[in-house]
Amino acid sequence: MNVEFINPFLVSLINVISTMATMDLKPGKPQLKNHDIAKGDVSGLIGMVGPKTRGSLSITFEKTLILEIMNKMLAENPGVINDEVTDLVGELTNMVTGGAKNLLSEKGYEFDMATPAVVSGKNHTISHKARGKKILMPFTHEYGSAFIEICFEDVQSV
Amino acid sequence: MNVEFINPFLVSLINVISTMATMDLKPGKPQLKNHDIAKGDVSGLIGMVGPKTRGSLSITFEKTLILEIMNKMLAENPGVINDEVTDLVGELTNMVTGGAKNLLSEKGYEFDMATPAVVSGKNHTISHKARGKKILMPFTHEYGSAFIEICFEDVQSV
Repeated sequence: MNVEFINPFLVSLINVISTMATMDLKPGKPQLKNHDIAKGDVSGLIGMVGPKTRGSLSITFEKTLILEIMNKMLAENPGVINDEVTDLVGELTNMVTGGAKNLLSEKGYEFDMATPAVVSGKNHTISHKARGKKILMPFTHEYGSAFIEICFEDVQSV
Repeated sequence: MNVEFINPFLVSLINVISTMATMDLKPGKPQLKNHDIAKGDVSGLIGMVGPKTRGSLSITFEKTLILEIMNKMLAENPGVINDEVTDLVGELTNMVTGGAKNLLSEKGYEFDMATPAVVSGKNHTISHKARGKKILMPFTHEYGSAFIEICFEDVQSV
């Protein structure tokens, strides 16, 4: 997996949060993920299937950050991760993955998206099981951290 | 979503656990899911994409049940949900979804599978966000409970 494939996801998250919530996430350095602890409180997960590759993506937010994003987008802050917050995380997961899909399509990488599922719970662990490197992209903001994880594998001919 | 679409997932889980672990899961009645609490300790999640439908599936196990399945399959019981257990849950998720895919293909329903991600953690919550009914299929065994959740939506023409 090369940087050409990773950057569109990074750019897409920054664009979505900037556009929807007028908040600027600061990207850290993408890195190989060597452990499975999701550093956040709520995660959107989505599967991707293309003719040459398939994989999974997660976007994880700290509670304080996702609540401020919700506050900026909808002028609501429920104070807890309720159904409205998980709906928002599902929508953001769709938007970020869709944005990356469009950017990658221009470069000749094609995939279709499944529908998102949202995991919440303190100290939950997510382990992506595609046979490929796991890439972790950290983001910071004064309200808290977020990160994207992606893992892809080549589709094997049957 | 009709019973013709649901039963292959139910049958596939029973078949996989019977074949791989010589354990018989007893299916309960499939039901609409009205809340988001995953009644288990470790869950495999996978996305599916077809020409007419897309969605997500999760298979959740109680710790005692997945550890006994591992014990029966590999003669190992680590006592905790470690990387080997999440690897096993990822494999089982692939096998169950693949089995259902084959059964559904015979009926004319086609979809491709993404790769699985595995969530672990007590009291984690999974919320499937496809625009469709969420179906919960419970299973019981003397060692603990398992359940499948699926949610699909029609692919919209662009």
